[in-house]
Amino acid sequence: MTKYAIGIDGGGTSCRAAVADATGRILGRGKAGPANIMSDRVMALENIVASSRSALENAGIDPSCLVSSTAVLGVAGANVGPHGSLIREALPFAKAEVVTDQLIALQGALGPSDGVVASFGTGSVYGARRHGKVTEIGGWGFVVGDQASGARLGRDLLELALLAHDGVCAATPLTRIVMAAFRNNPQDVVEFAHSATPGDFARYAPQVFEHAAAGDAIATRIVRKAASDIDNSLDALLWPDCNTVCLLGGLALAYRAWLSTAHQALLVDPLGDALQGAVSFAVALAGQDERRSA
Amino acid sequence: MTKYAIGIDGGGTSCRAAVADATGRILGRGKAGPANIMSDRVMALENIVASSRSALENAGIDPSCLVSSTAVLGVAGANVGPHGSLIREALPFAKAEVVTDQLIALQGALGPSDGVVASFGTGSVYGARRHGKVTEIGGWGFVVGDQASGARLGRDLLELALLAHDGVCAATPLTRIVMAAFRNNPQDVVEFAHSATPGDFARYAPQVFEHAAAGDAIATRIVRKAASDIDNSLDALLWPDCNTVCLLGGLALAYRAWLSTAHQALLVDPLGDALQGAVSFAVALAGQDERRSA
Repeated sequence: MTKYAIGIDGGGTSCRAAVADATGRILGRGKAGPANIMSDRVMALENIVASSRSALENAGIDPSCLVSSTAVLGVAGANVGPHGSLIREALPFAKAEVVTDQLIALQGALGPSDGVVASFGTGSVYGARRHGKVTEIGGWGFVVGDQASGARLGRDLLELALLAHDGVCAATPLTRIVMAAFRNNPQDVVEFAHSATPGDFARYAPQVFEHAAAGDAIATRIVRKAASDIDNSLDALLWPDCNTVCLLGGLALAYRAWLSTAHQALLVDPLGDALQGAVSFAVALAGQDERRSA
Repeated sequence: MTKYAIGIDGGGTSCRAAVADATGRILGRGKAGPANIMSDRVMALENIVASSRSALENAGIDPSCLVSSTAVLGVAGANVGPHGSLIREALPFAKAEVVTDQLIALQGALGPSDGVVASFGTGSVYGARRHGKVTEIGGWGFVVGDQASGARLGRDLLELALLAHDGVCAATPLTRIVMAAFRNNPQDVVEFAHSATPGDFARYAPQVFEHAAAGDAIATRIVRKAASDIDNSLDALLWPDCNTVCLLGGLALAYRAWLSTAHQALLVDPLGDALQGAVSFAVALAGQDERRSA
């Protein structure tokens, strides 16, 4: 039997942990640097452990209790090749599971209920839980996936700004702003685009939504296409008696009004965040231990 | 006065040259390695000179006549920053001009007439000549441009194959073939896509056209979208009494049947290739010299 349950949300910029008792009450929280298990497993492991120790300390618990705790880590790449099992084997907890970042986000958002979640930040990804079974789709990166993500909105904007520059479609206030920022030199846009990261493209997303709300024709076209892509992915996941769709991520709020009315009617606010999801998994896993050892 | 006119078509994989007399009759041809003035100016210069000497030798002319010849070089990047003037200053000819690859392609295809040309290979680019004035649009690379290019067709195919894999759209024979080649593992598709060059994506283009011709729903959707993009760009360039549209490049023939009927009615076969265009410019430039010195 393990005394404490630790939930860990391992992200590309930081790793957050929270420790809870057997009832799920959160006793303390901790934070450390990035935990990218695919690009730097050693650093990821260090930050996973550091954030967990920090959560125990924050709760006034001796950090050495780590080795007798149960933990669930949610992290991108957990389902990619051997990455998940390699990090799990290296973890110092009494018992641990490693699941995807998307799964703890779903658990945090829906709690124990069935439903569909869709995340829109720099990337995009979808998950559904039906009768306890979880399905994930999307999240394939912005080159050939991540439809409706911030990165795709930005890339679409630059493409249409160049077409407007060439007179293939009508320029709008937004495309003029974009081209002016590149000295009205399409070659500058191309140079930027060929070295831009998804995050670089995604920085245009708020501007696209602002101008779409103001009626800019090209911004509206970009957001309508993205919302239609979202509607298609939701339709692929929804089932007749599912009445819960939860939008997550930095662009969640911006997309609400652009979805089909049928989907808007299903929208609910998330119950909690991904860290909360990891904690509830960890509490459940610790409870299984207890039942077994009882 | 210069005795010989040399036309040069400087490409990313090889550089071709042809020498002509004052009447435009081609006397000899030569070929050398790549001439990419933006990425390796020194090597480009070597290959431009080597292909020209080789053309003179092929014509039975002393290669030292190079320095008394007039040349026109068509090469990608001629209009980008200082690249065109830097290579022109380094050329060893008595007189030389450096123009874009697209301009010699237009001249080769249309001869002295007005009209519109559109090239579809790995990339895509458009040009128009109206009352002698040349306009170029497109060609901004496949990340944010090059609509309807081979690279874009291939990228679209991988994106739709992933959506079909996720059940967001119906799989087709073509998407099944694509996914099977990646062991039905979307992660393999993503890995390929994130390191793929435009040429890697473009290798899917013939397959897309074959399956579109056979009625494959996703192949048809990709080609229809591309053809619609072409129609839009042609509309941006065409003027009421223009009756000439020339499609160039490896995908030119494949696109003919997919364009709007209005545009299909304007299609003509190219008169000659880009090297022919460079030669005719060089002959004209040599003729200007002659008239001035007369």
